[in-house]
Amino acid sequence: MTINRQWLLVSRPQGEASVDNFRLIERPLPELQDAQVLVRHHYLSLDPYMRGRMNDAKSYAAPQPLNEVMVGGTAGEVVASRSAAFAPGDKVVGMGGWQEYSVVADAQRGVLRKVDTSRIPLAAHLGVVGMPGVTAWYGLTQIIVPKQGETVVVSAASGAVGGVVGQLAKARGCRVVGIAGGPEKCSYVERELGFDACVDYKAHRDLKALAAALKAACPAGIDGVFENVGGVNLDAVMLRTNAFARIAVCGMISGYDGTPIPMANPSLILINRLKVQGFIVSEHMELWPQALKELGAMVAAGQLKYRESVAHGIAAAPEAFLGVLKGRNFGKQLVKLV
Amino acid sequence: MTINRQWLLVSRPQGEASVDNFRLIERPLPELQDAQVLVRHHYLSLDPYMRGRMNDAKSYAAPQPLNEVMVGGTAGEVVASRSAAFAPGDKVVGMGGWQEYSVVADAQRGVLRKVDTSRIPLAAHLGVVGMPGVTAWYGLTQIIVPKQGETVVVSAASGAVGGVVGQLAKARGCRVVGIAGGPEKCSYVERELGFDACVDYKAHRDLKALAAALKAACPAGIDGVFENVGGVNLDAVMLRTNAFARIAVCGMISGYDGTPIPMANPSLILINRLKVQGFIVSEHMELWPQALKELGAMVAAGQLKYRESVAHGIAAAPEAFLGVLKGRNFGKQLVKLV
Repeated sequence: MTINRQWLLVSRPQGEASVDNFRLIERPLPELQDAQVLVRHHYLSLDPYMRGRMNDAKSYAAPQPLNEVMVGGTAGEVVASRSAAFAPGDKVVGMGGWQEYSVVADAQRGVLRKVDTSRIPLAAHLGVVGMPGVTAWYGLTQIIVPKQGETVVVSAASGAVGGVVGQLAKARGCRVVGIAGGPEKCSYVERELGFDACVDYKAHRDLKALAAALKAACPAGIDGVFENVGGVNLDAVMLRTNAFARIAVCGMISGYDGTPIPMANPSLILINRLKVQGFIVSEHMELWPQALKELGAMVAAGQLKYRESVAHGIAAAPEAFLGVLKGRNFGKQLVKLV
Repeated sequence: MTINRQWLLVSRPQGEASVDNFRLIERPLPELQDAQVLVRHHYLSLDPYMRGRMNDAKSYAAPQPLNEVMVGGTAGEVVASRSAAFAPGDKVVGMGGWQEYSVVADAQRGVLRKVDTSRIPLAAHLGVVGMPGVTAWYGLTQIIVPKQGETVVVSAASGAVGGVVGQLAKARGCRVVGIAGGPEKCSYVERELGFDACVDYKAHRDLKALAAALKAACPAGIDGVFENVGGVNLDAVMLRTNAFARIAVCGMISGYDGTPIPMANPSLILINRLKVQGFIVSEHMELWPQALKELGAMVAAGQLKYRESVAHGIAAAPEAFLGVLKGRNFGKQLVKLV
């Protein structure tokens, strides 16, 4: 009998999330029923959106239920199948959650997708050629719609999403400026990812200092913004926008713990005729094939660089996730199980 | 020799604007030069945007220079012409400013436009079939893009812009809810303009009360917002938005005096996948003919209702303008000179 270890969400955070919000349990795997597939997870994906799911507040997705397996993307291998659509050995990505195995029914087939690992590593299908990559692609190409020569600013620039945004914008002929925390990340963003500049927000803690640093890094102003953070970060960027700038709002991680993050000067939306638009990539599935095609081709050709922070073993998941919320990861955060 | 009375801006407001910021002077009209037109103003238009021009701050338009004639739209009649393009008796609208006459050169011809007063009164070309009407049309049709059955909320609903927004949205099959100050304006918005409901912001002074009133008036939530006010008004409306709502930001009059008006909860942009977009109608001149055609046809057919507050004589301009900023006007504010 195979044992499946699972992380349950057992309480909701008051303020900051903590490891006490989760509990690790062991359960035997159930016998596979007709039209079901058993997937062994090789990697768990840990992403900032999960913090929002931990709250019991109205949002775009239902809250993560208490005492159930924590939600999340997974990449793995089919180890048993009673479905005609999958065979043992198939490499797949899905939404298996924080556990070692998942059982997926044919009726849920949309959530399980076979992937090609001959040219692209399995883990990359959770990152640069997965949800984070498509998120970057969507916000940049569908909301910012950058023109050659424009300046695009990306917050959380060393992260799984931000790094892709910047490289896609560079490929479109833009000046690209990142915002990241600390000299190591900024150096990586500039030297490895090829951004034109990267502003260290830890060295510019208040609005005035951050806006001044952005002014220096963006001498022609800012035309496009890919916003992952919100708060002072967004306030500073807005101060440097040009007329008709577009701000794609992908995340506001600075407010995920419930801290109020008012926008200091919304009249800039009028003064600079800004377009500020929020989006959720899972609502635009019709564009995923197009996005994945571009991203996959770039990765296979070595034109899209990325970095992974890998934690090892199912027990490490909560700590690694809390690290993502604190910016302790460097690139895409994964948990390797196999 | 004809005397032209003019209002100059002589100082910039510290906080609220006052009559002391303006000075009335008399100057003889200069002799008309070749390729010039002399226009006698019948009406001055007074609009909220003028408050922004009084400040010496970066904005979408250059500040109004000190000791020059205050900027503004005008409607009048050509009384002398040394231009082939205009003849005495022509009814025209232009940007003549706060004065009784203006001299317009052929080189500035774009700012002077002949209008048809056989079916549409001259003053309406400054309001419902002029800049305010086109502003309403642009924000509604180009940013909100309302679908039949959706709910559209309009602030400053009894004003020159808001009243048109609501009637155009009703004509497109929307549920339309206004926000206005006081029972008299709300009654007019509902009974005369045909809005489905109107919320009195003076009876709901804080965020919680205003959001509750909007919830009652918008049982299916809010899909489109035409924002003229900002501040608590915008915060309350955002709380009631549906997924994918569009907010056209036309004005933020609550912040024109320099009071900071932070947006309380910008994370709603992400949670509800909002599009928030600012615009200035004078940057979209290519769409004015289409807008004026629809607006003119509706006015001529009696399908578009509007109301005017008329002050009399050039001396009355500053007081009437300050009234606009306080919401003392009822509909389009004009100064009648002839």
